[in-house]
Amino acid sequence: MSYNLLKGKKGIIFGALNPDSIAWKVAERAHEEGATLTLSNTAVAMRMGETQKLAEKLNTVAIAADATNVEELKNLFNKSMEALGGKIDFVLHSIGMSPNVRKGRHYSDLDYNYLDKTLDVSAISFHKVLQTARQLDAINEWGSVVALTYVAAQRTFYGYNDMADAKALLESIARSFGYIYGRERNVRINTVSQSPTVTTAGSGVKGFDRLLDFAERMSPLGNATADDCADYCITLFSDLTRRVTMQNLYNDGGFSNMGMSVRALQQYEKGLHEDCKCGPAEDKHLFD
Amino acid sequence: MSYNLLKGKKGIIFGALNPDSIAWKVAERAHEEGATLTLSNTAVAMRMGETQKLAEKLNTVAIAADATNVEELKNLFNKSMEALGGKIDFVLHSIGMSPNVRKGRHYSDLDYNYLDKTLDVSAISFHKVLQTARQLDAINEWGSVVALTYVAAQRTFYGYNDMADAKALLESIARSFGYIYGRERNVRINTVSQSPTVTTAGSGVKGFDRLLDFAERMSPLGNATADDCADYCITLFSDLTRRVTMQNLYNDGGFSNMGMSVRALQQYEKGLHEDCKCGPAEDKHLFD
Amino acid sequence: MSYNLLKGKKGIIFGALNPDSIAWKVAERAHEEGATLTLSNTAVAMRMGETQKLAEKLNTVAIAADATNVEELKNLFNKSMEALGGKIDFVLHSIGMSPNVRKGRHYSDLDYNYLDKTLDVSAISFHKVLQTARQLDAINEWGSVVALTYVAAQRTFYGYNDMADAKALLESIARSFGYIYGRERNVRINTVSQSPTVTTAGSGVKGFDRLLDFAERMSPLGNATADDCADYCITLFSDLTRRVTMQNLYNDGGFSNMGMSVRALQQYEKGLHEDCKCGPAEDKHLFD
Amino acid sequence: MSYNLLKGKKGIIFGALNPDSIAWKVAERAHEEGATLTLSNTAVAMRMGETQKLAEKLNTVAIAADATNVEELKNLFNKSMEALGGKIDFVLHSIGMSPNVRKGRHYSDLDYNYLDKTLDVSAISFHKVLQTARQLDAINEWGSVVALTYVAAQRTFYGYNDMADAKALLESIARSFGYIYGRERNVRINTVSQSPTVTTAGSGVKGFDRLLDFAERMSPLGNATADDCADYCITLFSDLTRRVTMQNLYNDGGFSNMGMSVRALQQYEKGLHEDCKCGPAEDKHLFD
Repeated sequence: MSYNLLKGKKGIIFGALNPDSIAWKVAERAHEEGATLTLSNTAVAMRMGETQKLAEKLNTVAIAADATNVEELKNLFNKSMEALGGKIDFVLHSIGMSPNVRKGRHYSDLDYNYLDKTLDVSAISFHKVLQTARQLDAINEWGSVVALTYVAAQRTFYGYNDMADAKALLESIARSFGYIYGRERNVRINTVSQSPTVTTAGSGVKGFDRLLDFAERMSPLGNATADDCADYCITLFSDLTRRVTMQNLYNDGGFSNMGMSVRALQQYEKGLHEDCKCGPAEDKHLFD
Repeated sequence: MSYNLLKGKKGIIFGALNPDSIAWKVAERAHEEGATLTLSNTAVAMRMGETQKLAEKLNTVAIAADATNVEELKNLFNKSMEALGGKIDFVLHSIGMSPNVRKGRHYSDLDYNYLDKTLDVSAISFHKVLQTARQLDAINEWGSVVALTYVAAQRTFYGYNDMADAKALLESIARSFGYIYGRERNVRINTVSQSPTVTTAGSGVKGFDRLLDFAERMSPLGNATADDCADYCITLFSDLTRRVTMQNLYNDGGFSNMGMSVRALQQYEKGLHEDCKCGPAEDKHLFD
Repeated sequence: MSYNLLKGKKGIIFGALNPDSIAWKVAERAHEEGATLTLSNTAVAMRMGETQKLAEKLNTVAIAADATNVEELKNLFNKSMEALGGKIDFVLHSIGMSPNVRKGRHYSDLDYNYLDKTLDVSAISFHKVLQTARQLDAINEWGSVVALTYVAAQRTFYGYNDMADAKALLESIARSFGYIYGRERNVRINTVSQSPTVTTAGSGVKGFDRLLDFAERMSPLGNATADDCADYCITLFSDLTRRVTMQNLYNDGGFSNMGMSVRALQQYEKGLHEDCKCGPAEDKHLFD
Repeated sequence: MSYNLLKGKKGIIFGALNPDSIAWKVAERAHEEGATLTLSNTAVAMRMGETQKLAEKLNTVAIAADATNVEELKNLFNKSMEALGGKIDFVLHSIGMSPNVRKGRHYSDLDYNYLDKTLDVSAISFHKVLQTARQLDAINEWGSVVALTYVAAQRTFYGYNDMADAKALLESIARSFGYIYGRERNVRINTVSQSPTVTTAGSGVKGFDRLLDFAERMSPLGNATADDCADYCITLFSDLTRRVTMQNLYNDGGFSNMGMSVRALQQYEKGLHEDCKCGPAEDKHLFD
């Protein structure tokens, strides 16, 4: 189904690794809505993933760029404007990675080189994208930039580790740069705080299934899927949300404003019965 | 311009008094986007305003209802379903009034009967709309309800008086009922926190022009207009925002997340010059 | 243990029903810290509770006042100033009651007369206390006023019903009046958002024990007790917090900023085991 | 005046450069309240500032440590425990510096090596302090850690530059580590968000005086001073706030919850008069 909401608009989508990626869905939906776009990922991700396949499907190009490298970002914006025949109207930043999480470093035993990497890849890259775009004057007046984030930036979720801090930094960058880019070029910058979503990144995390279940039962509308997120991003890229900026927008079925639901507490309560025969989590030491 | 975003959807719009009203713009835009809808206002407002004219323009009916009166709301929902040939998909609540403001009662000298009226008209009416709709099962699965609010619910603006408290109550009702209606029928409920807007209600307030100027200079994208608000509401009524619920969403050019802009502080600074010849506000006693 | 933090200060404590009441603990601690104070409760509560006993213990008087009645509040302030020999330095508002909760009316089936009562007793009474105090000029420069609230004002907890909306209104009144009373008399007004606490009010609620367990496991420091709350209120009444105003301050062991703890999720997980023999909550229909 | 609130407690105070420093006042007040403590600063700051003088006055030692260097932090904690004869009860982190601000790099033209430095000094140092303390088990059960921050972490203040992002990161670290340290050792971690304060750091910033004036007129209680901040920190280090953790606590005269005050808008309005003879800010290009 298409409304032609993005007809004639040009975009860049970061982070479409494979069909499970939220960025993948956003790219597909943007295309359906009439946009033309380029895809970008790191060179490594492009070799391992299926970004190229999506580019072919959408009749476009995938351009390798390390989003922590300003020169590569310049190249990306220049190549994209060339490929698309003009300035950019929308950008999706869906980039995040923590070596501390990958290597199993506990939050109270962080490797600080890894932390620098987490912040650089997951948050500072967003500033680099914006600064590069602005210096090239690569984004059209009334353009729209969205970065994906998670509620762990506001509230602590055990196991989310230094990604929580990276997301807090990311959201601050959205506000700080949103002011600059807004007053100068009417470009709006927002973050979308999405339900926990089963992607290649997420599904590798042990214990993730339980958090997913909890979030599902807490949220009156259930967890938002990657498809839901794509739909929401389309509205934010469209001309219908032109004065919305510097916001962190929850697409989460209501989770963020829930304290306790009946469904979640009933599940919780089962474990409280004294005669409950169900054992404790066996992997408890892995997830604190 | 139409995207047919609301094609086939049925709605009820409260509060379209005249062409300056935000609700008026929302009704027009919803109609353009393919929706059919009914209009509602109090009997008095319908006599004084131009609601009937809008109804004719949109080829529909205006149904008088006092939103603080459950029986009249029942009648409104029943008549609307009859007129539109089915259940409702979206509702806009744009209702607010403070007798304390009208009668010039200072916030530290409130008349408590007036306060009850302020809360009943501006906030509890929203609960009544929702409770009535739910009891009649008048809203379709995945329907969307929006109420208009203002940032005074979070931060104190002198002169906004007991309307600030009413808006805080309104936003809480949106969360509380959003949980219930979401889990049961997947109906989402959000509030849109709009820039100060020149409407019949707003423009009567002395000093309002200065606040408008301040907000305009603080907001990187400037104040959102009634037209902007209408566009935004369309996205929230559409199927593209299905998992967004229980949220307070700012459509305000960035104002809510600004602490101080260059433009506003430059204006402010002018008044600080020691040799400044400009006098103080003459109506200062009226607006504190 | 006493620090003489409130030496020479005069206060009024609303809501000390019995030794489980938070207000009871606050009164005792304030007394220990060198304050003199009066107690107040409704006439009915004073007959049923032990307020009078506490008054004797603290060598003071209990003054009956319905906090929804301005005349009775005037009498209370006048009598208190007379009894204490001067103006008031601090006030605790610990008042809340919902007929809808008591009578088992679901949030989607509220009785609106009951709702008016909930709001009047639990929130508007705070405005009446403040407006009365100000009109009598009954609070000393740099005085401190605290009202107790709960995180349900920000996030929906099933079963908390219309008390959530009342608390949101209460917190807004604290901000709105905090501005007025601050600029005029340097009186500060804050709300303390306390962990769920076992009091006569709370303990009657079925299902409350489960919420308490969940909050305990979610909060890194565990639930704050009534004693903890009393200690915290002492700091807010003292001269050490003179510039803190219009704030909602969480005394909750960290709950408000937690998304998920290991301890809570482990408990939750038990209920997820497929072979779990534990049944669902039997009273599920009572608490949604 | 002393209440002996910190009698017998041991602390470490970072960032007491000279008598204008907030940390200086906190150290003095903590000493007055019966605490013993050590002071710490970078070696450079200790040579340029008066930390040593304060150490003598408080009959203690100043220990040089670069808070971005884990080895130096270990040395600091070990030396402090030795000097004070036991584990630490409270820590103040008052550290912040942005080379981008110092070198006049605009937020849309950041030097990314400088940004790394800003984040490392102003935010990651806090994690290093906490991780080091925990690994040495250097903080007593129920200890209290406070870091100073600013509302720019939530709302954009032009000219605050990348310090806004650093403060957002700092506050996130307080939450994330607050969870870990709380559940394990009942150590609480909070941030205090202070009014703009005239310190050596702040007073060098051009345009700062105007922001100070604006904040003063916006805040019902006026700006909180360094002395006010010291008093507030004392309450947070004391045993009276044991269950308060993971919070960002505003000590700002109410600024954070103000939208517009009469006093600020009257000043603002002066600049709006058409016949106003006051010129625009001359340094406007320096501060955007």
